[in-house]
Amino acid sequence: MEKSIIFLCFFVVMTTFSCAQKADNDINTPTETNFSSELIVEDLEIPWGMVFLPDGSMLITEKSGKIIHFKDGEKIMINNVPEVYYRGQGGLMDIELHPDYASNGWLYLSYSSEEGSGSGGNTAIMRAKLNNNSLTNKELLYKASPNTTKGQHFGSRLEFDNNGYLYFSIGDRGSRDENPQNIRRNGGKIYRIHDDGRIPEDNPFVGTQGAVEAAYTYGNRNPQGMAKNPVTGAIWIHEHGPRGGDEINIVQKGVNYGWPVITYGINYSGTPITDITEKEGMEQPVYYWVPSIGPSGMTFVNSNKFPDWKGNLLVGSLAFQYLERLELEDNKVTYREKLMDGIGRVRNVRQGPDGLIYVAVEGKGIYRLSPNTSSN
Amino acid sequence: MEKSIIFLCFFVVMTTFSCAQKADNDINTPTETNFSSELIVEDLEIPWGMVFLPDGSMLITEKSGKIIHFKDGEKIMINNVPEVYYRGQGGLMDIELHPDYASNGWLYLSYSSEEGSGSGGNTAIMRAKLNNNSLTNKELLYKASPNTTKGQHFGSRLEFDNNGYLYFSIGDRGSRDENPQNIRRNGGKIYRIHDDGRIPEDNPFVGTQGAVEAAYTYGNRNPQGMAKNPVTGAIWIHEHGPRGGDEINIVQKGVNYGWPVITYGINYSGTPITDITEKEGMEQPVYYWVPSIGPSGMTFVNSNKFPDWKGNLLVGSLAFQYLERLELEDNKVTYREKLMDGIGRVRNVRQGPDGLIYVAVEGKGIYRLSPNTSSN
Ligand SMILES: [Ca+2]
Ligand SMILES: [Ca+2]
Repeated sequence: MEKSIIFLCFFVVMTTFSCAQKADNDINTPTETNFSSELIVEDLEIPWGMVFLPDGSMLITEKSGKIIHFKDGEKIMINNVPEVYYRGQGGLMDIELHPDYASNGWLYLSYSSEEGSGSGGNTAIMRAKLNNNSLTNKELLYKASPNTTKGQHFGSRLEFDNNGYLYFSIGDRGSRDENPQNIRRNGGKIYRIHDDGRIPEDNPFVGTQGAVEAAYTYGNRNPQGMAKNPVTGAIWIHEHGPRGGDEINIVQKGVNYGWPVITYGINYSGTPITDITEKEGMEQPVYYWVPSIGPSGMTFVNSNKFPDWKGNLLVGSLAFQYLERLELEDNKVTYREKLMDGIGRVRNVRQGPDGLIYVAVEGKGIYRLSPNTSSN
Repeated sequence: MEKSIIFLCFFVVMTTFSCAQKADNDINTPTETNFSSELIVEDLEIPWGMVFLPDGSMLITEKSGKIIHFKDGEKIMINNVPEVYYRGQGGLMDIELHPDYASNGWLYLSYSSEEGSGSGGNTAIMRAKLNNNSLTNKELLYKASPNTTKGQHFGSRLEFDNNGYLYFSIGDRGSRDENPQNIRRNGGKIYRIHDDGRIPEDNPFVGTQGAVEAAYTYGNRNPQGMAKNPVTGAIWIHEHGPRGGDEINIVQKGVNYGWPVITYGINYSGTPITDITEKEGMEQPVYYWVPSIGPSGMTFVNSNKFPDWKGNLLVGSLAFQYLERLELEDNKVTYREKLMDGIGRVRNVRQGPDGLIYVAVEGKGIYRLSPNTSSN
């Protein structure tokens, strides 16, 4: 008992020290907040993705393999969801709507799947339509290979850009020395495809012998946040670092983000994981966290409901159980703030069509953040 | 490959032989049936309990710990369900309504729970009300002890009799030599309590030093079927045998049903498990199955929609994946029939308020059986 207390104290001291030494900004915890939160969807297990339908209702994915339609205060279960390989970090992950969903009805899912040969699973991307509380017209657009029984790093987030391309992430699947730096292998990459699964002709590795032509970037570790910058139209991601070294990156064609050759990750002992943090031909992150916050979910705020937050990034923290608000200037983080401290493992955050902020928390549900009217 | 085929043939021959030798009746598989089935609730995992609300909608328990309200073709998830110890055969099990549900709103659940001291879990009985898609007024009425990490034989079914007593089953929890024959221990018994959890003063072991006073019978193995006989008002159960020796029993005050001292169970080799199948002071079953069908769920038919089945018992088979219909005369089985052969693991069967038969099948959902109009 005494021994573990001593260890805990040591650990706290070390991380505080590391944070001051490695990160660009200390995080601030405001004593007063300009918003209030309400748990609007109760009793979720591991909510992963969420998206708003044209009528304002929500589709929510549960990692265990369920899609819930939250409408008029009821959680309606959707039938005919694809079978997921529910293991370790794998399961049903993100959900996204086609930019023209209102007219074409396509929705997109990322999930871990046993599809194809070999035991285990890997990340799959599907599109489908929602009819009568059931998925129909299911089309498998992409399935990473090979399958592996490793439970780590499936990714996976989905996002459309302004030109109608679909981006998705696949983590390194626990094979860091085989996958991320090899453009002939699926793991550790950001992908770009057409809305029907076709590979764009101008993808960077199209025509390269043996390359994964759907890939758009490489050297990524495990990206679980992806959001379109509403001002620039660029796709931003974040990715989990090994122990420390979580990164924010901007997705750029053919770029190598360096994992596992370069990283800002450190071991708990304080020693670096790699000898180098920079290398020619490998992109530096926009920002990195040391220690790891365990980032999941990300959104840009451009809502008039939160004028003080306009242009800010919101990122969920699994490890430290809060919502992080980052102010940016010229793609640099200038200020960080800890919101909803201790709320639980924050798995996702999105801005709703109503301009309010929705935060998915494991074991809890979905909170809606509204501005305090008194503070406006 | 060749070896396994030989083994399979051997097995089939053995079981057929055993069946003819041990069971009272061969089972018949009709070439034509007088009903049709429709999958009305899709995409369930392990549906366990089901009950009909006064408006004709259904509450369905999923073993994983969910309650689904199936209404107007939608599966609505109920919030605030008690946490279940989801392990092995444990999870959320049966659901039943108070006979006066329409006026008092009480519903009853059986589930495995970690409540109380000791690692592992044991069977719990709760009552609660349903308000606004959420369980409220939750009251824990009974919690078996001790907790154990063994995954076997939680039971558990619920049923009210005509006098308003609630009966529930707890299996032997994998400790056959400790629990069923010992009236001081919780496992391997049928219980009888008042609707609010109080123990009836005329329960058989009330006043016996150290006895489990809520118990009503003992020497049971793992009862997963319980139904009130609509003619006699008696509570009937069935229970899983060891390997062969599944039994149907009629619940009678203070009676010892013999497990594990007497059983008709046999080993696959054909040798009996116990030396004896009868003993003074131990009740003989109404019926027993050899080999085991793995019975789960049971109902008496008294519907005018199925005049040919009136007074019959319907029992689900997990092991052989069909619905068994048993004709009875003077509490003896006179005819057996295999319905829905190969449908999947049948977990439950009930007669609905509409007189139709509802059958819950694992990995499928709930089928509704309707009589063929042409055959009437
Ligand atoms: Ca990097
Ligand atoms: Ca018996």
